[in-house]
Amino acid sequence: MTMRYELLAQRILEGAAVRFPNKEIVTRVGEGTHRYTYADLLTRTARLGNALRELGVAQPRRVGTFAWNNYRHLEAYFAPPTIGAVTHTINIRLAADDMAYIINHAGDLALLIDPDLAPLIEAIAHRLTTVRHFIILGEPEDVTTTLPGAVSYETLLAAASPEYRPADVDEYSTMGLCYTSATTGLPKAVAYSHRAVYLHSLTSAMTDMFSLSERDRVMAVVPMFHANCWGLPYSATLVGASQMFPGARPDPRAICEMIEREGVTLSAGVPTIWIGVLDYLERSGVEYDLSSLRQVVSGGSALPLAVLQAYRDRLGVDMTHAYGMTEAAPLISVNRRRSWLDGLSEQEQLELCAKQGVVAPGIETRLVDENGEDAEWDGEQRGELWFRGPWVANEYVDDERSGETFVDGWYHSGDIASIDPDGYIQIVDRVKDMVKSGGEWISSVDLESEIMAHPDVLEAAVIAVPHPQWQERPLACVVPRSQTSAPLTKEVILEFIQPKFARWWLPDDVVFIDEIPKTSVGKFDKKVLRERFESHA
Amino acid sequence: MTMRYELLAQRILEGAAVRFPNKEIVTRVGEGTHRYTYADLLTRTARLGNALRELGVAQPRRVGTFAWNNYRHLEAYFAPPTIGAVTHTINIRLAADDMAYIINHAGDLALLIDPDLAPLIEAIAHRLTTVRHFIILGEPEDVTTTLPGAVSYETLLAAASPEYRPADVDEYSTMGLCYTSATTGLPKAVAYSHRAVYLHSLTSAMTDMFSLSERDRVMAVVPMFHANCWGLPYSATLVGASQMFPGARPDPRAICEMIEREGVTLSAGVPTIWIGVLDYLERSGVEYDLSSLRQVVSGGSALPLAVLQAYRDRLGVDMTHAYGMTEAAPLISVNRRRSWLDGLSEQEQLELCAKQGVVAPGIETRLVDENGEDAEWDGEQRGELWFRGPWVANEYVDDERSGETFVDGWYHSGDIASIDPDGYIQIVDRVKDMVKSGGEWISSVDLESEIMAHPDVLEAAVIAVPHPQWQERPLACVVPRSQTSAPLTKEVILEFIQPKFARWWLPDDVVFIDEIPKTSVGKFDKKVLRERFESHA
Repeated sequence: MTMRYELLAQRILEGAAVRFPNKEIVTRVGEGTHRYTYADLLTRTARLGNALRELGVAQPRRVGTFAWNNYRHLEAYFAPPTIGAVTHTINIRLAADDMAYIINHAGDLALLIDPDLAPLIEAIAHRLTTVRHFIILGEPEDVTTTLPGAVSYETLLAAASPEYRPADVDEYSTMGLCYTSATTGLPKAVAYSHRAVYLHSLTSAMTDMFSLSERDRVMAVVPMFHANCWGLPYSATLVGASQMFPGARPDPRAICEMIEREGVTLSAGVPTIWIGVLDYLERSGVEYDLSSLRQVVSGGSALPLAVLQAYRDRLGVDMTHAYGMTEAAPLISVNRRRSWLDGLSEQEQLELCAKQGVVAPGIETRLVDENGEDAEWDGEQRGELWFRGPWVANEYVDDERSGETFVDGWYHSGDIASIDPDGYIQIVDRVKDMVKSGGEWISSVDLESEIMAHPDVLEAAVIAVPHPQWQERPLACVVPRSQTSAPLTKEVILEFIQPKFARWWLPDDVVFIDEIPKTSVGKFDKKVLRERFESHA
Repeated sequence: MTMRYELLAQRILEGAAVRFPNKEIVTRVGEGTHRYTYADLLTRTARLGNALRELGVAQPRRVGTFAWNNYRHLEAYFAPPTIGAVTHTINIRLAADDMAYIINHAGDLALLIDPDLAPLIEAIAHRLTTVRHFIILGEPEDVTTTLPGAVSYETLLAAASPEYRPADVDEYSTMGLCYTSATTGLPKAVAYSHRAVYLHSLTSAMTDMFSLSERDRVMAVVPMFHANCWGLPYSATLVGASQMFPGARPDPRAICEMIEREGVTLSAGVPTIWIGVLDYLERSGVEYDLSSLRQVVSGGSALPLAVLQAYRDRLGVDMTHAYGMTEAAPLISVNRRRSWLDGLSEQEQLELCAKQGVVAPGIETRLVDENGEDAEWDGEQRGELWFRGPWVANEYVDDERSGETFVDGWYHSGDIASIDPDGYIQIVDRVKDMVKSGGEWISSVDLESEIMAHPDVLEAAVIAVPHPQWQERPLACVVPRSQTSAPLTKEVILEFIQPKFARWWLPDDVVFIDEIPKTSVGKFDKKVLRERFESHA
C-alpha cells in the first residue's frame, strides 16, 4: 500500500527550502527594499514557531496577524501551522466592532501587528478577552505602542531557537482561519485544514490555472489578510517562485515601480487596484516598463470589459479573471482560454475573458435554479452556484448561520450565474443584489458593466430602490472621471447603455456621487448605498 | 472546517467528462484509427464497471489487464477503481512462470486480454487458480481463443447499464496493482491507493514537471502495463489533454506517423524507443514533420548524452529526462532546467539534461552512504537514494522481502546517485550493478554512457566479471551499428573512452554481441549478461 504521508502546510515550506534555498523574497519597506531567501524564511519560521511555543501557543491555539503584505507576514503564514497552531489573518479595514468581535470569537492568544497599524488595535484593546501577547512586527525601536506588554518581533526571534521542529499533526487539522463579512450581521469564520491548503496550492499552480513555475516572480497585491491572499504565498512557495511583497499602503506608483524593478511576471489583485493603476498611468504620464508581466490576475468582483480592453490595448497585458471566495480557500476557477476557442474573434475573446472561467480540477459544481432544479449549462439559464471539493468549507466555525449556506454536503455560494456549454461560469449577480422588478430579475452587475464601459465613468453601482408599483426598480450610482469630455448626465448614461438592454431593465434614475463606498476588502458596499438611497423616488 | 472530500481516481475521469466532454482519445488500430471523446470514455467506463459488477467483481477484487496501449485499456484503467475494485496491469513480456505467478498472487478474478495476446494466456491458463472470466478486448468476431468461457468485451459492454454509479470508497483504498521484476526471485507487487494516483497526477502535471495542459496532445509510448504508464493516462485525463494511443506493436514508423498526423505535443517512452526512432529516421530517410512535439520524455533507464544531442541537433527537440520506479507510482523527478542555470554553456546544458532532475514537490529525499550517513549534496559524494512521499509505497504486497526495501518509513531505492547543489539527481548505478574492483566502486553506467557516445556503437552494457586478484573487473558488451565507418575493435572503444576515466576504471575487455538482452520492460538485462560471461577471463 501507499505510505501514509500527511499533506501539511509546512511541507510546502520545507520543500522550497530544500529545492530553492537561494530564491528571493523581496519586500518593499518604505522607499527601500528587504531581501532574503527561502532558506532564511525556513530559519525565521522555525524561530517564530519556537518563540510562539514559549509563549504557550501550541495546538490548537490561534495567532492573529494584523499586517500588510511583507516577509514577516509570510513567516506568520507558516509558523503557527508548523507548531500545530492556527494562523488567523485579520482584515485591517474592518470596523472596530467587527475587529473586536472576530479576535474574541477566534480566541486569538497572540497578535502579530505591523507597527503603523498598532493604533487600530489600541482602540479596541480593552475589549479583547483572549489576547495575552501583542507582538509588534519590527525591531525594538518600532515598538511605540501603548498596547500592554507589547514586544518586538525581532527581539522574540533573536531569543528563540533556530531549530526547526515541526509538529506532527493530522492533515485534517485546522491551520488557518479567515472571517468573511456577511451581508447582514457579524462576520463569519472559515477554517482551513492543512490538507485544503496543500491541495489548493497544487491545483491553483497548474498550467491551466495560474501556470506557476519557479521561473515566476509573483507579486500579490491582494492583501494577505484577504482570503488567504488567494493562496499565492503558499502556491508560490510550493513551486519555488520568487515573491515580491508590496508592503504598507501600496499605491499605484509603488506597484508599477515594483513590477518594473523586480521583473514581476504574475500579479494579482481586485479590480479596484487595476483600475487605479490604469488611472495612475494615464494621469501621471510616467512610462514604466511592465513587459515582464505575463499574467495579471483580477478577482474578488467582476472586472469591467473596458478595463480588460484597456490593459490589452494600452499595456499589452491579458488580464486573467479568477473567481472564488473565502469559503473556498479561495479559488474556484481561473479564466484561461480553452484550445478549441482560439478561433474566436477579438471581441468574442474579450467577452470570454470577462467570464469567471472554468472550475478547477477537483471542484464539483451545480447550477441550481429558484425551484431547486439543475439549470442547463447553455450560457442562458441562471441559477445559484453550489460547490464542493477538497478545499471547500463545510461550515462557519461556531456559527448558527452555517445551516443556511452548507446544505447536504454542498456549499451554496449565493452567486447567481450562468454556465456556457464550454464550462465558463458567468456571474450575474449576488442573490441579494438582484433587482426584483414586477416579479422579474434584473442583474445589477450587467447594468454596472455597461455603464462603466462609458469613457467618462470611473465607477458605477446599481442598486434596487423600493417602488410602489414594481416592488423594486434599479437606480444607477455613478462616479464620473475627474476630467470628462462633456458633462455627464442621466440622459448620456441611459442613451449609452440602452442598445444593450430591454427597456424595462434601464435604471429609473442616475445619481452622480463622489465615490462608491467599498467594503473592507474593496468590493462595492451596496448595503451603504441602499441605505442612503432607500427613499429615492 | 474543510469538507471531507476523498481524492479518488474516478474524480479525474468525472472532471474530464464535465469539463472536456468533446476532447479526443485516438487509438491506432492496425492501419486505421479509432476516435472517441471523454464523454464516451465515461459512458463506456460506466458500462464496464457495471459489467464487472455483474460478474461478481467488487471491492476489493482485482481485474488483470493484458493489453497494448489503446482506448479499451484506458477504460480498464478507470472502471475497476470506480466500483471499488483494483486494476492490475500485467506485463505482456514476462516469462510464462512469472506471468502465472503474478496473476495467481494478485488473485485476479477476471482478465481483460487483447485478442492477439490471448495465446500467451492460453499457454498458462491451466496454471491460473483464481481467474473466472477471460474477457477479450474486441468484438465477438475477435474472440478466437480457446480460453474457457472467453467472452467479447463489446458484447459485455453492450449488455451492461450505461448508468454511472461510482462506489463510495476511502481514498486510502487500493485501486491499482503493478508488479516489479526483482533482481533475483519472483516479481514483487506494488499497490496504489486512490489518493496516491490523484496526487501523483496533480503533481506530475505541474508546470515544472510535465507542464501538462488541456492544449496538449499526449502520446504515451511507454506501455500501459509498465509502472502505470508513468501516470500519463491519469494526468492527461486530469488536465483534459487529448490522448493518443499507439496500439499493438508500435514500431518507430507507427510512432512517427502518429506524431505527425495527430500533432502530438508530448510523448514518453524508454530510451530504447527513442534510440529506435532515431535509427529508423536515419535508415529510412523518410521526412516526418515532428515539429508539434514540445516535449519528449525519456525514463526507465539512463539516456545516453549522444541521444540527447542527436534529438536536439537533428530534430530540434529537447528530451526531458524523468526518473522513477514502480514503487513510486512512478515519478520521483523530472529534469527541467532551473531558471538560474539558463546561463550554462550548450555543453553544460546537455550534461544537465542527462541528469535525472530535481525531485517533485511532495517527495522527500535522503542520500545515504555505505555507512548509513547522509552524503553531501555536492555533486560528488555518492549514496543510495531513499524516498518518502504521498505516492511512495510502504511495502510489497504479501511479500516477505518488503522489510529489505521499506525501512522506518523510507523507501530504499537501490539506486546509487549523487545530488548536485542545485538539487539535480544523477544516478550512478544500481547498488547491484556497481563493479567492485579492489575494494573500490566502478560505475557501470558511467562507462556505458561514454561507450555509447561513439558514433559506431548502437548499444553497450558494462558488467562485473569475477577476477582472482581484484574481486571483480568491468567487461564491456558492445553492439555495433549495422554500418560502421571502420571496423569496431576493443582498441577503438578503449581509446575512445580513456580520456574520461581513471586508468583502473577501463574495462579489461570488450566483447561484441548482436544485441543487449532486455528485461520485460526494455531495460538492459545484466543478469543474463553476467551469467553468459561469468567465466570470461
